[in-house]
Amino acid sequence: MKTIDVPELNIPRVVIVGGGFAGIELIKGLRNKDVQVVLLDRNNYHTFQPLLYQVATAGLEPDSIAYPLRKIFKEYQNFHFRLAEVERVEEDNQLIHTNIGAIKYDYLVLATGSRTNFFGLENVQENAMPLKTVVQALNLRSLLLQNFEKALLTPDVKIRESLMNFVIVGGGPTGVELAGALGELKRQVLPSDYPELDMRRMQIHLMEAGPRLLPGLAQASSDKSLKFLKDLGVNVWLDTQVKDYNGFEVKTNHNRAIFTQNMIWSAGVMGNVVDGLKKEVINRGNRLEVNEYNQIKGYKNVFAVGDIASMTSEKNPKGHPMVAQVAIQQGRLLAKNLMHILHNKKLKPFSYRDKGSMATIGRNKAVVEISKWRSQGALAWFVWMFVHILFLVGFRNKTITMINWLWNYFNYDRGIRLIIRPFNRSKKKKEHEEEEKLVML
Amino acid sequence: MKTIDVPELNIPRVVIVGGGFAGIELIKGLRNKDVQVVLLDRNNYHTFQPLLYQVATAGLEPDSIAYPLRKIFKEYQNFHFRLAEVERVEEDNQLIHTNIGAIKYDYLVLATGSRTNFFGLENVQENAMPLKTVVQALNLRSLLLQNFEKALLTPDVKIRESLMNFVIVGGGPTGVELAGALGELKRQVLPSDYPELDMRRMQIHLMEAGPRLLPGLAQASSDKSLKFLKDLGVNVWLDTQVKDYNGFEVKTNHNRAIFTQNMIWSAGVMGNVVDGLKKEVINRGNRLEVNEYNQIKGYKNVFAVGDIASMTSEKNPKGHPMVAQVAIQQGRLLAKNLMHILHNKKLKPFSYRDKGSMATIGRNKAVVEISKWRSQGALAWFVWMFVHILFLVGFRNKTITMINWLWNYFNYDRGIRLIIRPFNRSKKKKEHEEEEKLVML
Repeated sequence: MKTIDVPELNIPRVVIVGGGFAGIELIKGLRNKDVQVVLLDRNNYHTFQPLLYQVATAGLEPDSIAYPLRKIFKEYQNFHFRLAEVERVEEDNQLIHTNIGAIKYDYLVLATGSRTNFFGLENVQENAMPLKTVVQALNLRSLLLQNFEKALLTPDVKIRESLMNFVIVGGGPTGVELAGALGELKRQVLPSDYPELDMRRMQIHLMEAGPRLLPGLAQASSDKSLKFLKDLGVNVWLDTQVKDYNGFEVKTNHNRAIFTQNMIWSAGVMGNVVDGLKKEVINRGNRLEVNEYNQIKGYKNVFAVGDIASMTSEKNPKGHPMVAQVAIQQGRLLAKNLMHILHNKKLKPFSYRDKGSMATIGRNKAVVEISKWRSQGALAWFVWMFVHILFLVGFRNKTITMINWLWNYFNYDRGIRLIIRPFNRSKKKKEHEEEEKLVML
Repeated sequence: MKTIDVPELNIPRVVIVGGGFAGIELIKGLRNKDVQVVLLDRNNYHTFQPLLYQVATAGLEPDSIAYPLRKIFKEYQNFHFRLAEVERVEEDNQLIHTNIGAIKYDYLVLATGSRTNFFGLENVQENAMPLKTVVQALNLRSLLLQNFEKALLTPDVKIRESLMNFVIVGGGPTGVELAGALGELKRQVLPSDYPELDMRRMQIHLMEAGPRLLPGLAQASSDKSLKFLKDLGVNVWLDTQVKDYNGFEVKTNHNRAIFTQNMIWSAGVMGNVVDGLKKEVINRGNRLEVNEYNQIKGYKNVFAVGDIASMTSEKNPKGHPMVAQVAIQQGRLLAKNLMHILHNKKLKPFSYRDKGSMATIGRNKAVVEISKWRSQGALAWFVWMFVHILFLVGFRNKTITMINWLWNYFNYDRGIRLIIRPFNRSKKKKEHEEEEKLVML
């Protein structure tokens, strides 16, 4: 058996799988403690997922929202990073197997996050664009621009419209923010790039299965975001379920057909489970059942934090929402609890402090809920920007993002309308599989 | 026959193939003139090739050096862009055939630039990395970072060294600047990212077939750039020809073997000829023989400008150097001459004003020759930066590049150490073919 070579020390080894929000907060909490930390990730960077849609809509380059993992932890003693795809846990021998070999752990933390859930709709999975990784965001950017170039070439109005139309499925923050960003592109950017196309033929549809947008927020925020989207010319379809999509025609539970070659699926996520765990700990939504200390049920030394962890209780039967704040707070607490375990102290149970939610819908508009404070409009928009800049990792990324936003704001522009790697629809199925592997670690 | 649909007007149509330096200067010169301008390019952006090596060495993202073609010309009347791969000229019917259909021209301008010339060394072509396009630069960035990750995994010192070593072939500006940038990475960035690797095992070799570096510049500049590179720890091999490379071992005309899995080939370029032209106009270096008005010899309405054009004379038997300044000046003059043709005026012959050359070699160091003024060192470095910022297209790109450079300078950092799309060595041959198609338009 090939093993991953890291120094053998006389201190416990904590192996962490995944450098997302939960993983990096956990490692920060273990800084200079008496443990060896080994981080495994399929990518060499942390992704700030809340801004992926801006990469997709030509507002930001990947360097604004991705941050090298080695750089975050470069001054940490006893920290080791390995670029690896995790394959299987072997709990009996406290081993985790990866594509570059196996490594022994004293404590294992799964922070593998989530990926797009297509709810078994195979055609949709094959033909729609997911938006959970940097590569997926770049693919969507290429597709969008390629389809506008193609629209110039066809005399068939129905085909031209299908190339210019967008259907976004899922009325959560990603769907709402993406619809808003596309609305801005339609208004401000695409008309000057494509004077030969009639922009009235470009329709943006946002479809939500439930009765309102942003179901995680208050009714007032849902109502306001609906209004903001309508003002931007986005067609919002509530109580609308997508049933099928062949790459051209969208079938819903209603009878009207919509034609688009641009469907973005942001209707759901599911956990990235690692093989080798007992079946009974895998919960609904492909998440791992953990106790209040993020220990996976029935395991002593294996933990799960963030989107992949499902901490249910009578009060909270579905577990916590799969959002960054839960991941951050669980990562921080687990760092403390691991030290408590090592020092035979009492563990502290997790208690989620909901810091609120927000979504921006185009220029000068957002809905924000922070504790009991609610705001909709321009002030909310400033708060949204401030919070996102604040949470970006690293001063460099904050600066570059800020400059891009200022530029885009004052020039009504999106600077990065570049098709660097064309997206190949015929390779789509294969790409999807690769994407999934990517997210699966 | 499928045709590319652009409005039929009663004014002459100028079809331009390639949005490089020559193409964009030509179009600027035709702004609001009584001609219809149709630009065809394989990419939807202009590439500022002199800074590609900074994308490859994690200093800049593509958005700093690539600029959307539609945006450059967005306020131009009678300008049309089509994303197309040109296949063949059919001069008899004044048609140019592309992957999206054919288009009739009254005047055709080939500004297709150049691509890497491997001089028939098939193994080198298969295994070395070229550096002429944004995608190639991103591939090189990924390979560099992937090989350092791999170096951590092998107990075999020879293999580890081959993963950490770099061989750059060609001592022109690209080779010299790339070697300098890698020298800075070795000093400032990689040691903190990879504390587990012994950086003394990382060797950077620059191989030049001739007796000196930067053969286009004065001897003093060659000598100084050699000194600057040596100060950075780069091994410079003059009078050294690479004969073979199997992806691991470099064979030269000397007997010492060098092992590397990172070879960058910047030893030569050749023209991107379009099919359908008479064989006799294709000159050495795959360039098109033109007269002093950039008319391809034997053709009346077909022109070539920039790298692809070879304007030989008794005084200048090899034609002009394949550099940006020639392309810019030829593009500008051809715009005027096309108007002279339309107004039956006398054409103006091309006369190259050499504005000088420059190359930077790491921090605070460059060699610059502008007319008779020569400078080497810190002042030259400031001039180099100033000139490159000045020539970047667009205020946004200038700003983003400046911010990145300031950041990198004051933090001894390269912020973009991201493997967004892993480079796959087994797909290399196929990739090479795709890259070539890319550059071939």
